[in-house]
Amino acid sequence: MNNSYNNSLSTNTQLTQKSVNRCFDGEQHYYSHQSIATKTPMTFSIYLPDEALTGKVCPAILYLSGLTCNADNVTHKAHFQQRCSELGMIFIAPDTSPRSSEDDDVPNDERYFVGQGASYYVDATCAPWAKNFNMQSYIVDELYDLLRSEFPISSIGVTGHSMGGHGALLLGFKFPSKFVSVSALSPVSAASESAWGEAAYTEYFGDDKAQWTQADAAQTIKRVGRQYSRILVDQGGADNFLAEGQLQTSKLQQACEEVAQPLTLRYQAGHDHSYYFIQTVINDHIDHHWRMAQLY
Amino acid sequence: MNNSYNNSLSTNTQLTQKSVNRCFDGEQHYYSHQSIATKTPMTFSIYLPDEALTGKVCPAILYLSGLTCNADNVTHKAHFQQRCSELGMIFIAPDTSPRSSEDDDVPNDERYFVGQGASYYVDATCAPWAKNFNMQSYIVDELYDLLRSEFPISSIGVTGHSMGGHGALLLGFKFPSKFVSVSALSPVSAASESAWGEAAYTEYFGDDKAQWTQADAAQTIKRVGRQYSRILVDQGGADNFLAEGQLQTSKLQQACEEVAQPLTLRYQAGHDHSYYFIQTVINDHIDHHWRMAQLY
Repeated sequence: MNNSYNNSLSTNTQLTQKSVNRCFDGEQHYYSHQSIATKTPMTFSIYLPDEALTGKVCPAILYLSGLTCNADNVTHKAHFQQRCSELGMIFIAPDTSPRSSEDDDVPNDERYFVGQGASYYVDATCAPWAKNFNMQSYIVDELYDLLRSEFPISSIGVTGHSMGGHGALLLGFKFPSKFVSVSALSPVSAASESAWGEAAYTEYFGDDKAQWTQADAAQTIKRVGRQYSRILVDQGGADNFLAEGQLQTSKLQQACEEVAQPLTLRYQAGHDHSYYFIQTVINDHIDHHWRMAQLY
Repeated sequence: MNNSYNNSLSTNTQLTQKSVNRCFDGEQHYYSHQSIATKTPMTFSIYLPDEALTGKVCPAILYLSGLTCNADNVTHKAHFQQRCSELGMIFIAPDTSPRSSEDDDVPNDERYFVGQGASYYVDATCAPWAKNFNMQSYIVDELYDLLRSEFPISSIGVTGHSMGGHGALLLGFKFPSKFVSVSALSPVSAASESAWGEAAYTEYFGDDKAQWTQADAAQTIKRVGRQYSRILVDQGGADNFLAEGQLQTSKLQQACEEVAQPLTLRYQAGHDHSYYFIQTVINDHIDHHWRMAQLY
């Protein structure tokens, strides 16, 4: 295999390559870098099909993971590599939050849905969170620019799972000039009205409800209106978090209807919230982003 | 979905169902049971396509994992579920060894290639190992019979990775009446001549070299001769354990040539020993076992 792309990366000073594994006709890479937005080291995984490894520009998918996850869960368990290899698609999985390291003491919370490992793609404004928890800026500005400068990317679509699905919908509609396509798997539809999001936004934004609204996917869709020719959402029919009211899929449906944003919403009978569900539908999401990238 | 098969299982007293997750058009199940061979509780995962869940007999693959693994690694990372769902194939992943629990104090060793989590599919004869480390009997007698009595299985093929690939070759050729097909991924070819196997067999068999020979895949193939119309082996070309001499693929090739056992041996350029490699070739192995099951 032509290894010229790998070699060109080694001269870059911003990215530290952590691992490379050949997988189908491409390579699974991990990188870390020092983030300006979070003031911590940040890690992401990126799958590069052979086309990208030899310098050809390829469309990319940015996958935002859910609560408790890091870059590993989706990279090990979602099985996106085969389809991305077949199509020539790049797949990027960032970490979900800043984390403490030897040199950095990052705030945390004992609840799994607040703080480190909790995946809210927003910029906190309250102490002690505001210093590090700037994941909106990290994703749509810093990482976005880094990816476009360091890898041969033609366009980026955004997707995610659970609270990362909320992030995909939120960032996709807040920054439609950055993304050519949006989809989500089992997304939280309205973080500001879910028990998880209420706890986190109380910490990150305090009582300023205008900020809560800005950080809510369903309300953002209603505010900015139709942005994409179609968005794709899959939801497991036997998902316990749907039953518990954390996801509120009807609020997403209602928001899209209100602004005539075409939404393909599929309930998959019997499927739960796990990576067994994600792997069942991930190829359809890769295909969705691929098609949208061709139209772009 | 017709849930009759699930319901029939709940009346069985030998198996305790630990989890069920819908995955593609089928379900990923985990079970535990008290083993007579190992005198410990044992866990296995089984993927049941919808055909099997509604009682139709399906061919099955028994996957033997490598050193340090349990049933989770392959179930989470190998991505066999999609192809098994498409074909209507059952996929079973047992644990690699007996393990200590609250009620059982099982011997262990601080080396990762001896004792708990080390995947030798042999019956130890030396103390303290002989009491629990009877994985050959567990797999080919106890689990084999349990699977055939509890699930709608038409035939069983055996495969595995690394030391589990050695186990697949060893058990496949030692017990050809039990298995309709054999394949292996990055197998150890001759455990009795690898550093890992030498350490373990010294513990399990002492100085009795006749037992070492009986527990060696390449020597077993040479002893019993051709048993299958074809066996399939994939090996990563950039596998560090191949370079270090643990795998000795040439010994497998030589044994097959000596007894005219047809062997399709494929070196996959650039691929290593990881699950990124396993997922790259697993569909071809599922297809191999499927075809052999149709001929059976």
